[in-house]
Amino acid sequence: MSDVLQQLGDILEQRRHGDPESSYVAKLHHKGLNKILEKVGEEATETIIAAKDAQHSGDHSDVIYETADLWFHSLVALSHLGESPQAVLDELARRFGMSGLEEKASRQKS
Amino acid sequence: MSDVLQQLGDILEQRRHGDPESSYVAKLHHKGLNKILEKVGEEATETIIAAKDAQHSGDHSDVIYETADLWFHSLVALSHLGESPQAVLDELARRFGMSGLEEKASRQKS
Amino acid sequence: MSDVLQQLGDILEQRRHGDPESSYVAKLHHKGLNKILEKVGEEATETIIAAKDAQHSGDHSDVIYETADLWFHSLVALSHLGESPQAVLDELARRFGMSGLEEKASRQKS
Amino acid sequence: MSDVLQQLGDILEQRRHGDPESSYVAKLHHKGLNKILEKVGEEATETIIAAKDAQHSGDHSDVIYETADLWFHSLVALSHLGESPQAVLDELARRFGMSGLEEKASRQKS
Repeated sequence: MSDVLQQLGDILEQRRHGDPESSYVAKLHHKGLNKILEKVGEEATETIIAAKDAQHSGDHSDVIYETADLWFHSLVALSHLGESPQAVLDELARRFGMSGLEEKASRQKS
Repeated sequence: MSDVLQQLGDILEQRRHGDPESSYVAKLHHKGLNKILEKVGEEATETIIAAKDAQHSGDHSDVIYETADLWFHSLVALSHLGESPQAVLDELARRFGMSGLEEKASRQKS
Repeated sequence: MSDVLQQLGDILEQRRHGDPESSYVAKLHHKGLNKILEKVGEEATETIIAAKDAQHSGDHSDVIYETADLWFHSLVALSHLGESPQAVLDELARRFGMSGLEEKASRQKS
Repeated sequence: MSDVLQQLGDILEQRRHGDPESSYVAKLHHKGLNKILEKVGEEATETIIAAKDAQHSGDHSDVIYETADLWFHSLVALSHLGESPQAVLDELARRFGMSGLEEKASRQKS
């Protein structure tokens, strides 16, 4: 399971300073943080719409696809700030290790 | 890296049918898909705002925290539909394996 | 002030069944509700980002522009369902008339 | 039609510096722009979800209610920056007057 996010992190780092003409990731970085964050908002919306459609159709392929797009673009945003997928996983692990992810989330969501 | 998402998937599955009084995840499932998707939208917004603040402050802790929240709640949504974190990783891996994630993303984002 | 929303409502109604080749509104309706809702999500994100930038720059032109886009696309969504701008204004007026908009909002936002 | 937004603008201006203990609007301003923008994101998400439900149920009351909430909170955001509802209406009117709202929107949405 790890290899995918590890490889994705490596690819994002390599392409961060790539050619905006040939690389979608490099083009996003070139356009800047606002453009990347617009994509995060777009993909979140598409994930929500796809989940509503999945609720009625029973077909989950679109919602999985859009969630992957959402994670991907949120990682491009972190990469733009110099952070890797590991930072997200460390944060999730920290919640487990200390008092459990769920209790932690519950407490801070008053 | 894998262990975190694997464990998180296991926890989400265990708590899916837990006690809504004591489990935040069980409470979300009990409230239903709309409530879970509202959380996805909220966390996406908070991620975007945190990234804008990080751009000015240089402090990345909030944006990492909010991205973890966004991933977490998108996994609760998938869990509500019966899907695991593996489905998202498989989709990301599929994009790598075929012709590279980036080229794939580029092509479908005309 | 009223004339703008009244006229906008009339225009949206006229173009709802227009030619998707020449009318942006007709094209949105032709693509369907999901596409229109994706635009609502996009414009909400752009409004939020523009407001964060306005906070630092003091220039409000973008946030006003994006808010107009957000209202416009939310009206296209309502039009797709057969509703007019008047429905939104009636709802806002109802909150005033009964017990005041603010108290109403406060009570239902526990 | 105009009276509602005019009155709402007046109320928002009056309550902007009100008592955060007794006024929801004053409380939002006291919490700051980020909190207000989180509400804009939340209400956009709830509008989208309500529209998807309306598509299946035929009941439009929730989507109208959530759209009113979305407009309301976007006006609180503008008020926080010192802008009134008139600014949004002027922007919409400007699009009409010049070459028509639709053509304008079409051109800038390449």
